[in-house]
Amino acid sequence: MSFNVKILGCGSALPTLNRNATSQVVSHNGQIYLVDCAEATQVVMRRNSVRIGGLNHIFISHLHGDHFFGLFGLLSTLDLMGRKGDLYLHCPARLQQMLESKYSPVLVNELGYTIHYEPLSPDGLSLTLETKHLMVYSFPLNHRIPCWGFVFREKPAQYNIIKECIPRYNISIAEIVAIKNGSDLRLEDGTVIPNSQLTIPPPKPKSYAFVSDTTKLDSVVEIVKDVDVLYHEATYDNSYANRAIETFHCTAGQAAEVARDAGVEKLVIGHYSGRYDSVELLERQAREIFPNTFAAEDGMEFEV
Amino acid sequence: MSFNVKILGCGSALPTLNRNATSQVVSHNGQIYLVDCAEATQVVMRRNSVRIGGLNHIFISHLHGDHFFGLFGLLSTLDLMGRKGDLYLHCPARLQQMLESKYSPVLVNELGYTIHYEPLSPDGLSLTLETKHLMVYSFPLNHRIPCWGFVFREKPAQYNIIKECIPRYNISIAEIVAIKNGSDLRLEDGTVIPNSQLTIPPPKPKSYAFVSDTTKLDSVVEIVKDVDVLYHEATYDNSYANRAIETFHCTAGQAAEVARDAGVEKLVIGHYSGRYDSVELLERQAREIFPNTFAAEDGMEFEV
Repeated sequence: MSFNVKILGCGSALPTLNRNATSQVVSHNGQIYLVDCAEATQVVMRRNSVRIGGLNHIFISHLHGDHFFGLFGLLSTLDLMGRKGDLYLHCPARLQQMLESKYSPVLVNELGYTIHYEPLSPDGLSLTLETKHLMVYSFPLNHRIPCWGFVFREKPAQYNIIKECIPRYNISIAEIVAIKNGSDLRLEDGTVIPNSQLTIPPPKPKSYAFVSDTTKLDSVVEIVKDVDVLYHEATYDNSYANRAIETFHCTAGQAAEVARDAGVEKLVIGHYSGRYDSVELLERQAREIFPNTFAAEDGMEFEV
Repeated sequence: MSFNVKILGCGSALPTLNRNATSQVVSHNGQIYLVDCAEATQVVMRRNSVRIGGLNHIFISHLHGDHFFGLFGLLSTLDLMGRKGDLYLHCPARLQQMLESKYSPVLVNELGYTIHYEPLSPDGLSLTLETKHLMVYSFPLNHRIPCWGFVFREKPAQYNIIKECIPRYNISIAEIVAIKNGSDLRLEDGTVIPNSQLTIPPPKPKSYAFVSDTTKLDSVVEIVKDVDVLYHEATYDNSYANRAIETFHCTAGQAAEVARDAGVEKLVIGHYSGRYDSVELLERQAREIFPNTFAAEDGMEFEV
């Protein structure tokens, strides 16, 4: 199953000419999920040929403008495009209050579609979305205001039955379902054919974690353990370690320590301070601790 | 005195790849004034080298997203840049309620500067800003929600005294002030030197009108009478006259009729529907009625 991430923006609070603030599209098996929605995200989506109409779930990590000011325009545009299908916002509870308040920038009760809110839980790792193939969990981070990360985990796929076995053993439909779920096959004469002789094991489920604005957290190491790709904020290079603490952010080195301690496969860093034109220094500092690090840039796409 | 307008965006509700939604910068004698503030305006300002820090007055015509969704990001960025000076918002009263509400997207009471609100008046032409050199008036339009236009009028400048006259007639400082305001000079022997022999008349005051989203209005013709440059919305070409009425907008031909009937010097059309890649047709249709018409494009700058 396809599983990839497109970076729409990897800048931070102060906009620059080269980087949009935070927004990315996670695509899994033909479905797209928007993670954060900075100002101008809808235009960046168009520029990157992401089908806005295909969105059903939007995840908002926290209510700093560089992570959600693009939501008002996107919600309005979906309405102007004639959307009728429900839209799900996985977001801080305050966003629902904002959008449903008398003075909301977007009059959500006049939109031609319904918004469902899934308020993020302050209590550790929490399931916020389950689809046929995917589980998406939120987890609290440590920032100046309530903030969350998200982890997308593929469900274990069923075993694939070896087609030739079906006529050979005259396997019924009920038995096929059982075998795909891991059962052995008992023939009429009492012979047992072990599942391993009937099936090909499915590929290992993949996982992607998005760690938004935060100080370095041990709890994150536990939660993102063994994910295939970890996107972790790295607002500053290591020389700004004090500034990182003051502003509740991480350095490139800290992001790499989380990746190393969690044993992830690959680290992608982003959310760079506006002071960096080039982020080669941040990538180098992270690679000293976790070699399989890549520095995000707007428009970059990677497979999970 | 310099007086010009820079188009930051001349698109309408649905964003396109080539046009930002409505926003423009009026510059007069070194001061800048922002008129409308669509999503991404702060980035477009940077791209056009407009000094964001130099902004003191922002005019918002109405609360449709394509005219104000960029304000949240701009207000936040001004704070992040360390702004201390007061900022004036000339805007619908509802915007103040929105920004000061408990669930405002921007917590304006936490900004490091003060916002003063000048709510726009529903009662015809109303002065909303007076500076040393400029008067800015608002006037109601006819759109789906309360909406206003703005007209920037230079104050008549003082007469310039002819320098050689000062020693010739031994003119005092008090007399200079009076002459600059149009008085004649009475010499000690009773001779009267007429003002016209002492001064060079100042250039004619210039004026610029911004007509935001509206149906065609006779009241606008009266208000923008004789302005030097009229910016008038022209969302549709003439074949969409019915659609224009339904959506409370104008066609290119209607914008040109307003310009012709008001006897303006020059017409600039904008706020094009997203259906137009090229707006040559709209420009041609307007020129048939008012030849001195120009179609705005993003980044275009014109002198008033």
